[in-house]
Amino acid sequence: MDNNLTAKIRIHLFTHDKCFGPGIYQVLEKVDKLGSLRSAAADMNMSYSKAWKMVKTCEENLGFKLLISSTGGKNGGGAHITDEAHAFMEAYEQYVAKVNAFSEELLKEKFNFYKNS
Amino acid sequence: MDNNLTAKIRIHLFTHDKCFGPGIYQVLEKVDKLGSLRSAAADMNMSYSKAWKMVKTCEENLGFKLLISSTGGKNGGGAHITDEAHAFMEAYEQYVAKVNAFSEELLKEKFNFYKNS
Repeated sequence: MDNNLTAKIRIHLFTHDKCFGPGIYQVLEKVDKLGSLRSAAADMNMSYSKAWKMVKTCEENLGFKLLISSTGGKNGGGAHITDEAHAFMEAYEQYVAKVNAFSEELLKEKFNFYKNS
Repeated sequence: MDNNLTAKIRIHLFTHDKCFGPGIYQVLEKVDKLGSLRSAAADMNMSYSKAWKMVKTCEENLGFKLLISSTGGKNGGGAHITDEAHAFMEAYEQYVAKVNAFSEELLKEKFNFYKNS
């Protein structure tokens, strides 16, 4: 590519309302890694209440549970991701990756007249 | 499509810095239609200074002029879009349309497991 033009694409999915995007994807990814919503929120410098609300809103709009809380136990208050959430996250990840790959090629083609330094 | 899942995609182009996206596209489109940056800003409920700054920043990052001012004359202070701006807008429009069309098909494919009502 002769110019240094790049694209940043943000994709939000909607049912009747906005339901899934980079924000909730990251929250779920962090829960999967850290084992609790509280840790995930802290790691993202987000309030627990905001993260909780994001998850609840997303669950309502998608129509299935994203997280299962595991109360009690030694560490108490943990959470893990449902199988449905995993499947949805994987589909979203593959979808976004393919759209990005497609758009990268197309960007070269459509803007090949444009040169900058 | 059995679910009512849709995607909203926002694409910003970058050179060394963010340089082109839906916002500046709309400003230029309005200037083209209304014949002045002041009218365009007013039509978008945006301050003239903000619209002016958007244009200047974009011109700096892209490395070419977007608007030509036509001072004086009966109505004074008009502006029109350069040929380079027209070409860039057209490429952006086609690029975004193609990415949207591609992603719409892919959305069906990737999320065909997901059903909601």
